[in-house]
Amino acid sequence: MLRVLFVGDVYGKPGRRVLAAELPRLRAQADFVIVNGENAAGGFGLNREAFELMLNAGAGAVTLGNHAWHHKDVYSLLDHPQLVRPLNLPPGTPGQGWRTFEVGGQRLTVVNALGRVFMDAAHNPFLALDDLLQRPDLGSVFVDFHAEATSEKAALGWYLDGRVAAVIGTHTHVPTADSRILPRGTAFQTDAGFTGPLHSIIGADPEGPLQKFVTERPHRFGVKEGPAELNGVWLDIEHNAALRIERYHFEEART
Amino acid sequence: MLRVLFVGDVYGKPGRRVLAAELPRLRAQADFVIVNGENAAGGFGLNREAFELMLNAGAGAVTLGNHAWHHKDVYSLLDHPQLVRPLNLPPGTPGQGWRTFEVGGQRLTVVNALGRVFMDAAHNPFLALDDLLQRPDLGSVFVDFHAEATSEKAALGWYLDGRVAAVIGTHTHVPTADSRILPRGTAFQTDAGFTGPLHSIIGADPEGPLQKFVTERPHRFGVKEGPAELNGVWLDIEHNAALRIERYHFEEART
Amino acid sequence: MLRVLFVGDVYGKPGRRVLAAELPRLRAQADFVIVNGENAAGGFGLNREAFELMLNAGAGAVTLGNHAWHHKDVYSLLDHPQLVRPLNLPPGTPGQGWRTFEVGGQRLTVVNALGRVFMDAAHNPFLALDDLLQRPDLGSVFVDFHAEATSEKAALGWYLDGRVAAVIGTHTHVPTADSRILPRGTAFQTDAGFTGPLHSIIGADPEGPLQKFVTERPHRFGVKEGPAELNGVWLDIEHNAALRIERYHFEEART
Amino acid sequence: MLRVLFVGDVYGKPGRRVLAAELPRLRAQADFVIVNGENAAGGFGLNREAFELMLNAGAGAVTLGNHAWHHKDVYSLLDHPQLVRPLNLPPGTPGQGWRTFEVGGQRLTVVNALGRVFMDAAHNPFLALDDLLQRPDLGSVFVDFHAEATSEKAALGWYLDGRVAAVIGTHTHVPTADSRILPRGTAFQTDAGFTGPLHSIIGADPEGPLQKFVTERPHRFGVKEGPAELNGVWLDIEHNAALRIERYHFEEART
Ligand SMILES: [Fe+2]
Ligand SMILES: [Fe+2]
Ligand SMILES: [Fe+2]
Ligand SMILES: [Fe+2]
Ligand SMILES: [Fe+2]
Ligand SMILES: [Fe+2]
Ligand SMILES: [Fe+2]
Ligand SMILES: [Fe+2]
Repeated sequence: MLRVLFVGDVYGKPGRRVLAAELPRLRAQADFVIVNGENAAGGFGLNREAFELMLNAGAGAVTLGNHAWHHKDVYSLLDHPQLVRPLNLPPGTPGQGWRTFEVGGQRLTVVNALGRVFMDAAHNPFLALDDLLQRPDLGSVFVDFHAEATSEKAALGWYLDGRVAAVIGTHTHVPTADSRILPRGTAFQTDAGFTGPLHSIIGADPEGPLQKFVTERPHRFGVKEGPAELNGVWLDIEHNAALRIERYHFEEART
Repeated sequence: MLRVLFVGDVYGKPGRRVLAAELPRLRAQADFVIVNGENAAGGFGLNREAFELMLNAGAGAVTLGNHAWHHKDVYSLLDHPQLVRPLNLPPGTPGQGWRTFEVGGQRLTVVNALGRVFMDAAHNPFLALDDLLQRPDLGSVFVDFHAEATSEKAALGWYLDGRVAAVIGTHTHVPTADSRILPRGTAFQTDAGFTGPLHSIIGADPEGPLQKFVTERPHRFGVKEGPAELNGVWLDIEHNAALRIERYHFEEART
Repeated sequence: MLRVLFVGDVYGKPGRRVLAAELPRLRAQADFVIVNGENAAGGFGLNREAFELMLNAGAGAVTLGNHAWHHKDVYSLLDHPQLVRPLNLPPGTPGQGWRTFEVGGQRLTVVNALGRVFMDAAHNPFLALDDLLQRPDLGSVFVDFHAEATSEKAALGWYLDGRVAAVIGTHTHVPTADSRILPRGTAFQTDAGFTGPLHSIIGADPEGPLQKFVTERPHRFGVKEGPAELNGVWLDIEHNAALRIERYHFEEART
Repeated sequence: MLRVLFVGDVYGKPGRRVLAAELPRLRAQADFVIVNGENAAGGFGLNREAFELMLNAGAGAVTLGNHAWHHKDVYSLLDHPQLVRPLNLPPGTPGQGWRTFEVGGQRLTVVNALGRVFMDAAHNPFLALDDLLQRPDLGSVFVDFHAEATSEKAALGWYLDGRVAAVIGTHTHVPTADSRILPRGTAFQTDAGFTGPLHSIIGADPEGPLQKFVTERPHRFGVKEGPAELNGVWLDIEHNAALRIERYHFEEART
């Protein structure tokens, strides 16, 4: 059995800080840790410093999302064997959309896929997963489905039920209270939630989004400072199925 | 103090069944019950039969959403003093977007508002709430914010913090694990979740959505049969502020 | 040289009427006629009656669009050698997204592709065309690009310039005044316009859309009755390049 | 009678160049010139230099659009009596969404309004126009409707038919070949087209958009250099009705 911790979208400096402080302790209880890092650098994208911080804190694999390409830095990181970019992109896209790791004598494949409802165009994630799952020797498969709509996320869960160990959503930055193991053994949760500033609007200082929504004009968004939360999902995985799924939530003291 | 239960989007026959079975018991513990009924009739909209079933089960107020207008029946119900349609629609829209109830000598105003991100055009919900909150004698205010994007929902929560007792989201049909009381006393949860069939894709039989996502062609959706879940939020409210917020989840036996 | 007439989206009964009345005369001046029929049956989709009417009027090929699947009838027509459904859909989709015709000893391949900006998810049309254009013996290629955004349509034109004879847009139902031959010989026009009722809102009786936009509630749309217009594009094609592009517009008398 | 020229979205340096070169000559034939300047500064928004260039070239009024707020410069220009920002924004928005001009003893009111289909949230443009048209002494009214969807644009034309002199669309950057006078006297054209670089994708160098559409990753867009086109609409207006509508198109030599 593998004990896997998945940590949702690390957002900006507050997200990196709480991750660096808490992950080493959590890492000690896990066989493997996967961290979504699509917002790790300033709230948009990934740079080398943020990537290394996550690895040093204990991430075995870092996944991405729609903001993957925001910092040009990411292009120099894509060949790193612990970085997983979205799978459902055209042939020839640099980097890799899945990576297989050896964990205590077992194989664990980490996949990152993009949804398409209310998001930019991408390849069909359902068919991309079908293709990937033809491959031999993937071992147990963990899918970080980076998507907006609850319908599309639930659909991928049901589609892959019995074929992967877990489908866990990211992107909305809010954890959902629907963790479950589907009938054929796949763990599912619509969204893991994010790792970033409390008292924010999905990471941003409320000032920017509020100005935008009230005035109907664009406004600059800033990363909210102050205490942060860390949201994740614990999974017990065996033979490409889940035995247990449990939400994890940590908050820094609100001083 | 008022003990208020809010029940998320009742979806089709399974949703009506679990509501009719469970709400009378819950009603006995509450001072007032609010039920979102925008999907109560066949998964889309509201008809007289579904409305009466919800009232009979104990709903003091029924709120709606983007599917409000699906059944023509709804037009004959809009003057009912317990039905609250979306607030942020043009002047002259039939029905009312807020209703004030007398509950045990206290006033409780129930509001239903529509988000605009990834949704059809509507009036600005932030400004519509500003207008409404000018009115005297609203007592404690409960806002069902029917919206898709987590950012817009969080924004309304922060915008109204200290001015209403609660902002609880609906529409995504998935409960979120972020219940909190904001610094100035407003209870907030991104989504209450829905009341409808387990083993579904936000209410629909997985067959339809899966066909759509896999084939990239439209497919007919049906309501999933079988056991249902009920998702809600318990609130303790006093002087237009929340003292407590707690998620509630019930599942019928999976036979 | 081939003289090709392309007729934009035939919409409902008024569109079928003007097509049946005018196309035979136009057909006599053309080597080949292509008609977009995605709205031919009642404003949405295609049925057998409408398909046969278009063939009888002189269409050599009928193309479709996002409404292709609206009538179940279409499934029984998809194997017809003159019906071209959208190309960029998953492997296994019934029907064919391109058809090659022998016209006066020359080959003409007709393609129908879907855009993705502001539209439902589909396969990448740029890459789908790349794949298709690998095939031998296509002769001159005509692409009906059924898309919403002017940017995506212009992009496909520039992408295929020199590789196909024409990229003509459909879907917005309004003809654009930008007919041109791109530097490497591909004829381009953002939208051919539609073939349907004058005094309508892209085919619909203004009543429905106006009610929707003014009230912010859904309303039923009906096909507008009365005189119709026919919009098309004349192309002179040789060796997979265009020698001439010219808009064509006909209106029934406004009695 | 007033002879009015409306010039569509001036885009970046090529757009400013062709406008500065050609507008003085055209201005001499017109009683009044209206120019949409929402893309005048670098392709996004308006700055002082671009605004003054347009006034110096002969613009009597400059309208804006969804990109109005891109350059902070615009905030210092909004009180200028010749600048018209989008009308349908919240009360308190700086600037004015309509301006009345005295032209040869007649009044001409210029309005700029935003669509909402496939665009960011704004106030209801139909109702905003209803409100505006209550005002006395507007004289003849010209509406620049900055919107994406052909349906919404046609709807506003029909809605205002007989109440304003003209509804001319902007935003798609492609002129439409549907200029007409509606039954009650309002001139209508879905889009005026833009004033900017030929051989571009709605203004941008094709390289950026093509990379985006092919790779499904974001790419930087640049303004295309080289020869430009100018698109506009000539209107003869009298007593708040149109006597004539005619498209105007000019292209710099393709050297
Ligand atoms: Fe994220
Ligand atoms: Fe994201
Ligand atoms: Fe719902
Ligand atoms: Fe809804
Ligand atoms: Fe169409
Ligand atoms: Fe279409
Ligand atoms: Fe523009
Ligand atoms: Fe624009």
